Amino acid sequence: LLLDEAKMTNNICRLKRRLAGHGVRLNPHLKTSKCLEISSRLMDSMTGPCTVSTLKEAEVMADFGVRHILYAVGISPHKLDRVVEIQNRGVELLIVLDSVDQAIAVREHSERSQVSFSVLIEIDADGHRSGVMPDDTHTIVRICSTILAAGSRVVGVMTHSGGSYSASDVGEIKRAAERERLGALNAAETIRSSHFPCDVVSVGSTPAAIFADNFTGVTEVRAGVFAFFDLVMAGLEVCGISDIAISVLSTVIGVQAERSRLIVDAGWMALSLDRGTSKQAIDQGYGLVCSDEGVPYEDLIVLGVNQEHAIVGPRPNSGAKLPKLSVGDRIRVLPNHACATAAQHDSYQVLAGDPKAITDSWSRFRGW
Amino acid sequence: LLLDEAKMTNNICRLKRRLAGHGVRLNPHLKTSKCLEISSRLMDSMTGPCTVSTLKEAEVMADFGVRHILYAVGISPHKLDRVVEIQNRGVELLIVLDSVDQAIAVREHSERSQVSFSVLIEIDADGHRSGVMPDDTHTIVRICSTILAAGSRVVGVMTHSGGSYSASDVGEIKRAAERERLGALNAAETIRSSHFPCDVVSVGSTPAAIFADNFTGVTEVRAGVFAFFDLVMAGLEVCGISDIAISVLSTVIGVQAERSRLIVDAGWMALSLDRGTSKQAIDQGYGLVCSDEGVPYEDLIVLGVNQEHAIVGPRPNSGAKLPKLSVGDRIRVLPNHACATAAQHDSYQVLAGDPKAITDSWSRFRGW
Repeated sequence: LLLDEAKMTNNICRLKRRLAGHGVRLNPHLKTSKCLEISSRLMDSMTGPCTVSTLKEAEVMADFGVRHILYAVGISPHKLDRVVEIQNRGVELLIVLDSVDQAIAVREHSERSQVSFSVLIEIDADGHRSGVMPDDTHTIVRICSTILAAGSRVVGVMTHSGGSYSASDVGEIKRAAERERLGALNAAETIRSSHFPCDVVSVGSTPAAIFADNFTGVTEVRAGVFAFFDLVMAGLEVCGISDIAISVLSTVIGVQAERSRLIVDAGWMALSLDRGTSKQAIDQGYGLVCSDEGVPYEDLIVLGVNQEHAIVGPRPNSGAKLPKLSVGDRIRVLPNHACATAAQHDSYQVLAGDPKAITDSWSRFRGW
Repeated sequence: LLLDEAKMTNNICRLKRRLAGHGVRLNPHLKTSKCLEISSRLMDSMTGPCTVSTLKEAEVMADFGVRHILYAVGISPHKLDRVVEIQNRGVELLIVLDSVDQAIAVREHSERSQVSFSVLIEIDADGHRSGVMPDDTHTIVRICSTILAAGSRVVGVMTHSGGSYSASDVGEIKRAAERERLGALNAAETIRSSHFPCDVVSVGSTPAAIFADNFTGVTEVRAGVFAFFDLVMAGLEVCGISDIAISVLSTVIGVQAERSRLIVDAGWMALSLDRGTSKQAIDQGYGLVCSDEGVPYEDLIVLGVNQEHAIVGPRPNSGAKLPKLSVGDRIRVLPNHACATAAQHDSYQVLAGDPKAITDSWSRFRGW
């Protein structure tokens, strides 16, 4: 797994500059990279804030000295003991919930443990996955009052504009971002008008972060994939192909000229099974194939994958020719989905300058 | 990642008994399990043989004392140095190739290093992926003579009946297995009639291993997923749902009764993105959902996944109802594809007897 450090730096700076211009804080999601060296570059300070998708990530970042962490997956009661352990190390660990049942579990734990929790209420702005409906005043207020009864407190709201990933154009992303902002503000207003505080209004997704026009009322933007970008993001016009900072290095192990295809030794174990571009205007198969220096071959994609093999060939109906490659030649594959492809690897091989010279190796963490 | 040891033992014994009855050796493929404890149960002896998909697996097994290893992915020239290192530890490491270009690379390495290699020629019996056509006498003989010129030797042929995974019924699997056997024997006969030895005739895939009627002329059968089985294999009638030995334990973090769905905390990071049942008669989504004791709920499947979330609900058009589950309740998810799901985890939590009591933890290895 190769990482072009200069591209990553450009990608990170691009979003940081944009959000700074809008006066809104970036709360980087670490689930894409899961790497200390990259986390340092994503966070504004070594104490955070950052967003994580597992308590394992929170524990690793707490070990690293981070003190402000948002665990952005809805809490389940049995995880609260681990949350307390992390809090006890001096970390403000925000947890997320979207139901009165979860609020009761938090209250009961507070009563039992005499520990209080800081909570964001997840708001469902697009029907994509989880969250309270923005206009469900009853549930929002009941969550606030339920946990307050044992000393825990709601500190704000969060939304995830997951729907923006399936947008068909930039206008749709902008509308999704605005809908998300309004949903979050609506819920925040419900909380405040019931005389509870609501300091945090957290919205998120890389497409929305890149294209939203209005951040009024928003206190932070969560985004993760923007550091690497990927073919799905390129298909959404969020980035260009040349901005994609990670790729999988692979070797040609078979040339089937008569069938106009190559066999290479990177299967789904290295590329992942993500087919995120399958519903986009340009279907990139299991990845777009580049030279060993990272220059894309025209319309050359990964047509199929097995565990340790991939079949590479021209995009169907493109009329493209198979480039002249032989057994032993190296190629790179750009990922559909950076989070999924990176997750298949234990480390990043870092390229700084020379596209063929690996200058460093950065470990990834994983697990739950 | 839970592993029901009793089910795995039954699955392993079933195939071993079957192949013993046919007088043919099992050469277990370790790429599914990647685990020393499971490898010991799969191999007939602690010295092997075994089949691997990466040189990393070969190195781990060499450290473990295994002395007969088949590296079943077509060789690329730059890997031959690592092959030599493994051979130098007293391991017979068979490598695979399917082109004269690879044979020339092997010969050149032998000339340079004064080390000889033992080679299987991969034969393409079904057009699925790699291999020389069974009737391509010219290429087969030229590979044999090319490598012999520097002291390396072809010891046999191998085929992979990858096409059997997309069979529509058992009859089709049987026909695929027989086509594979005949292709392998045809190529072996070509080698022998050119006065080269051909001791090994290796065929493989779990469906073919379970259903083939005739192993005449075959010296070994490679199979891997049979130890765990999965929903794809159940869809092919290779096993029953109740034979599936691994599952992913997850917790309900949201109940959306009005939308008839649950949110659980196992996303693609835990389940994989495999959709191998999508073209089968019964589409299992991203997995079939069971109680925390492993009993499937009727028509309850994983409808969608994000990195750390899954959306669970009744199979579309099944008329099934959402079972009564609450936030904090545990479920298990059976995998579409055991290789892909297991690859998302670092260890197996072993259940022996009590379906809720984890008795051991077995590490997985990974990487290349």
